[in-house]
Amino acid sequence: MLPFDLSTIQMQEMNKIPGKEDLLHAKKTVLPFVHHTPILTNQFINQLIEADIYFKCENFQKVGAFKMRGASNAIKSIKLKDAKGVITHSSGNHAQAVALSAKLMGIQAKIVMPENAPKVKVEAVRSYGAELVFCKPGSLEREKAVADIMAKEKWHFIPPFDHPDVIAGQASCAMELMEDVQGLDYMICPVGGGGLLAGTALACKYFSPKIKVFAGEPENVNDAYLSFQSKTKIENKNAKSIADGLLTNLGELNFEIIKNEVSAIFQVSEDEIIQAMRLIWERMKIIIEPSCAVPLSAMIRNKELFKDKKVGLILSGGNVDLDHFFAAIKRV
Amino acid sequence: MLPFDLSTIQMQEMNKIPGKEDLLHAKKTVLPFVHHTPILTNQFINQLIEADIYFKCENFQKVGAFKMRGASNAIKSIKLKDAKGVITHSSGNHAQAVALSAKLMGIQAKIVMPENAPKVKVEAVRSYGAELVFCKPGSLEREKAVADIMAKEKWHFIPPFDHPDVIAGQASCAMELMEDVQGLDYMICPVGGGGLLAGTALACKYFSPKIKVFAGEPENVNDAYLSFQSKTKIENKNAKSIADGLLTNLGELNFEIIKNEVSAIFQVSEDEIIQAMRLIWERMKIIIEPSCAVPLSAMIRNKELFKDKKVGLILSGGNVDLDHFFAAIKRV
Repeated sequence: MLPFDLSTIQMQEMNKIPGKEDLLHAKKTVLPFVHHTPILTNQFINQLIEADIYFKCENFQKVGAFKMRGASNAIKSIKLKDAKGVITHSSGNHAQAVALSAKLMGIQAKIVMPENAPKVKVEAVRSYGAELVFCKPGSLEREKAVADIMAKEKWHFIPPFDHPDVIAGQASCAMELMEDVQGLDYMICPVGGGGLLAGTALACKYFSPKIKVFAGEPENVNDAYLSFQSKTKIENKNAKSIADGLLTNLGELNFEIIKNEVSAIFQVSEDEIIQAMRLIWERMKIIIEPSCAVPLSAMIRNKELFKDKKVGLILSGGNVDLDHFFAAIKRV
Repeated sequence: MLPFDLSTIQMQEMNKIPGKEDLLHAKKTVLPFVHHTPILTNQFINQLIEADIYFKCENFQKVGAFKMRGASNAIKSIKLKDAKGVITHSSGNHAQAVALSAKLMGIQAKIVMPENAPKVKVEAVRSYGAELVFCKPGSLEREKAVADIMAKEKWHFIPPFDHPDVIAGQASCAMELMEDVQGLDYMICPVGGGGLLAGTALACKYFSPKIKVFAGEPENVNDAYLSFQSKTKIENKNAKSIADGLLTNLGELNFEIIKNEVSAIFQVSEDEIIQAMRLIWERMKIIIEPSCAVPLSAMIRNKELFKDKKVGLILSGGNVDLDHFFAAIKRV
């Protein structure tokens, strides 16, 4: 283990599986900081899959992704004491979620981002008033940058997915979904670090144990699939997929939960992800990011399992780089 | 006037401004055929314009556009007698709206489309079971093709915008909006042929006369703006704009209504349309077509007028060709 491994810093609080009360508490805690997002249905897609699908639109969430739930619960749960504020590293939705949550709670945030992070995400984080620190790309580089700062100044680290408070916050999404749609047979969401999947699985276990929980994962970064199959944590060999929100390895605590509470993890190809994303854009007229198309592509690939079922599908986010599209439009 | 001018065919029924009862009747008539579409708000855009905007999402309407309202009302209002079914010409949303309305009502539809119409729209019309007839591009060619068919067989022509039943049907959109959001100061929508704008203006006049009605129009096809300013019907000199739903000239009856009931028509540039479209895609995470971005660009250009006002903005449709975007994605 490297000296700057962040997981050692807050190890004590990090290995406790959230209980029913933790989820109920988290749902109340995040209330002022998140939207109760709408649920959409689409007749064409239902007919295609021969299922009854309820799309939970976290692409309409604040900062455009479910990450706002976990980040706001984690930040609200800490005691800052003599810490300057909260710190995290992320190139994506978690960075924005921590920045906005901190802003809404009136505390300082410092965000480490790789120097190649998309401009639009950098600008979003800046617009929420967070202090930005750039580092070389790579997860080790990011963690080192955070550790270096924390060695000099006291900041509270907000992990992106592998923490009970983050998991409990993400669970509020499934809790809203089962409140709004009664009698679901299944729930399905994407899996990357596993915070959303772990939270969803716990929400179903505690509040609606009849619901089976599934996940979709890109074949290219299938550590969750392999780990789930072998019941041993296996790391990704590469980190390339169009589903850029799902490149990370499964968190330790998340794996403990997922291993026991999830019914199956399905792999999908890059082409299947793009096709499902286009289907949702064209038919539902909503913008989702590639990671967010993974559960629908898993359903399309495993149609027979979902046939005639009532399925809650979490659309995890809508932050996608539109430069290509608008460049093409301007050339027309 | 050319011998095949379709406006002469049904002239008698075409020049009557719909009354309050007609709008109430249309709203009931379209009920089984349309979605009561949701209303979205966006804090970022509200702050940008310093107004309180309620986006009426007709991009989520059946066939992806408000056109379903006018088409279903017009088709339900006719007596087929010995006619074979309904016929229309359109390269866009009206074609799909007539095809689907006819299908839902169990009657035959024949659609004349230009041979260069986008494949996706041709396929959509075909998927609704309509019979397709292709013609050379151009509005005269389309009208002639319809007239040729009607000279041989009895079909009932469903005009795209310039007809009391179409106007009354489109009015149901503004009626829903003012039911769902109380106390609006303004309503704004795009103007092409003028069916939606005329319907919106009548809905406000009859049911909420304090609401001022505005419209946005591309500078490139500004016949409505010029006609409104001069109080004389002026035709477009060209028909090129990214807002491909707004290329047509204002209808006669629509102009009569718009002239008297609308407060102002604003012009916007092509760049402003693209910017507003991108703003909505990125911030609201919904897909709208370029025509649909015109009202927001008009508001951005005329910010001082809309400052601190409560505005209902009709997002007219979401049918946009995504080929470029997905081609770019696959190359990444």
